[in-house]
Amino acid sequence: MPIQIVQSIADARSTCRLQNRQGKSVGLVPTMGFLHEGHLSLVRQARSDNDFVVVSVFVNPTQFLPSEDFDTYPQNFEQDQRLLEDEGVDLIFFPSTKEMYCSSNSTFVEVTGQLTTNLCAISRPHFFRGVATVVAKLFNIVEPDRAYFGHKDAQQLAIIQRMVQDLNFDIEVVPMPIVRDSDGLAKSSRNSYLNPDQRRSSTVLFRALQHAKTLITQGERSSNRILAEMEKMIQATEYTRIDYINIVCTTSFEPQEYINSEVLIAIAVWITNTRLIDSIRIDPANLTS
Amino acid sequence: MPIQIVQSIADARSTCRLQNRQGKSVGLVPTMGFLHEGHLSLVRQARSDNDFVVVSVFVNPTQFLPSEDFDTYPQNFEQDQRLLEDEGVDLIFFPSTKEMYCSSNSTFVEVTGQLTTNLCAISRPHFFRGVATVVAKLFNIVEPDRAYFGHKDAQQLAIIQRMVQDLNFDIEVVPMPIVRDSDGLAKSSRNSYLNPDQRRSSTVLFRALQHAKTLITQGERSSNRILAEMEKMIQATEYTRIDYINIVCTTSFEPQEYINSEVLIAIAVWITNTRLIDSIRIDPANLTS
Repeated sequence: MPIQIVQSIADARSTCRLQNRQGKSVGLVPTMGFLHEGHLSLVRQARSDNDFVVVSVFVNPTQFLPSEDFDTYPQNFEQDQRLLEDEGVDLIFFPSTKEMYCSSNSTFVEVTGQLTTNLCAISRPHFFRGVATVVAKLFNIVEPDRAYFGHKDAQQLAIIQRMVQDLNFDIEVVPMPIVRDSDGLAKSSRNSYLNPDQRRSSTVLFRALQHAKTLITQGERSSNRILAEMEKMIQATEYTRIDYINIVCTTSFEPQEYINSEVLIAIAVWITNTRLIDSIRIDPANLTS
Repeated sequence: MPIQIVQSIADARSTCRLQNRQGKSVGLVPTMGFLHEGHLSLVRQARSDNDFVVVSVFVNPTQFLPSEDFDTYPQNFEQDQRLLEDEGVDLIFFPSTKEMYCSSNSTFVEVTGQLTTNLCAISRPHFFRGVATVVAKLFNIVEPDRAYFGHKDAQQLAIIQRMVQDLNFDIEVVPMPIVRDSDGLAKSSRNSYLNPDQRRSSTVLFRALQHAKTLITQGERSSNRILAEMEKMIQATEYTRIDYINIVCTTSFEPQEYINSEVLIAIAVWITNTRLIDSIRIDPANLTS
């Protein structure tokens, strides 16, 4: 079957509904396009888990601030289409902004509490409301059995999991590991903004996280001491400006003073004008890897 | 088939899902129980439109303020069950608060704008967030083809319609007319709070709305003059305290200074400690009835 590309909500819904009616399982990979190996790892998992694979390509305006890069967010639909064809995807849902948000649109899905007040929510307070809302819409349009999200956006993943549970979506959220370049930089569409000098500096996110892991492996349990060392390392690197570094509980996202159970070490750093995020999960009771 | 009563989300979901899989249409009537003729009119319409009829009975805590009547809201499940059996309902979904809201629940659906800032939202700012959230949950659990709501809760109906459109729920919202006692009082579970003297006063809501209609039929188009007359009428009635009276656009819920197109005249009045609401829609171009 050639890949189907649909732009209307009604077509996406009826195509996916037909699969459901035939007892076929449907997997959804929501993306903003400009696909990289990170996205493709989700697509491959979806392909292996489901009868029918849908990838949405939609740069969602409600998760950008006016000052952010909505207008310049990288796009290359032809390349995305080719990549998704190669992965054997069945359907690309590629709606316009107008198709997704009518002019009188005024409904939002909001996850409240620490999950949406800490980390990325501090500098991007609008972000998770936009994400939860568009994902709820995509879930209602595609009605997937499974939906795939990367650990790269750790906070987004936790918020989607929270939303699915709280609003009783009957959808399995499948979390997938971070995919990295060979020097450790986490794959991101925004990496394309970096010039060669900035690209070299950008590896400091991964290196700082690895350093934190080494410290914990050596027995350090004080978050403050670990964060201070990470901070020093990043500040010593050209082009960087720290947005946040934090060590939080992997479920509640509450900051942890001491590392007594599994934590998420999460980091957001501006490389000149490009904001990059990365994170690792570390369980002090299980430090083998 | 005897009526089924299920208390768990999983059982409600699997029973309704089975109907869907068999190509049967599912109608949902969400209620807080203590059913009256208003509810039963929705149930009858659902029965006539669908293969399988689900009535949810759940007093939703997230739509009450601490100061409100959540703890004393009238309940009589045995009577509700009997009434629904008589109407040939297939399934009653009767979950506990704990089943619907786990302790870490923190996701809300919020409709923003005039629709949720005017009228009832002024004195009950929490109300519509609670309603939209629980209805979204019920929609995801039951996955109905159609859902039934009364014009009695005009603002709630408009908000649900807005939410269904904005979040792309594939559900037909069926609005149903207000059902009244013979003296005009709109049926409401809260009418049971009224003593005989208060009950007599309570007809002023309907009488004030009828008076407004008469004025408009006679050619009056100024909202202020109509509202002033309604106010006078209510204030002259014992036990009353006006929460609001307003004349708004039926779609945007923006207040209308002049009546040039269809409007909603909406009214909320305290009868001692019981808050009652009522409304009528009037189209000045179509004043026949």
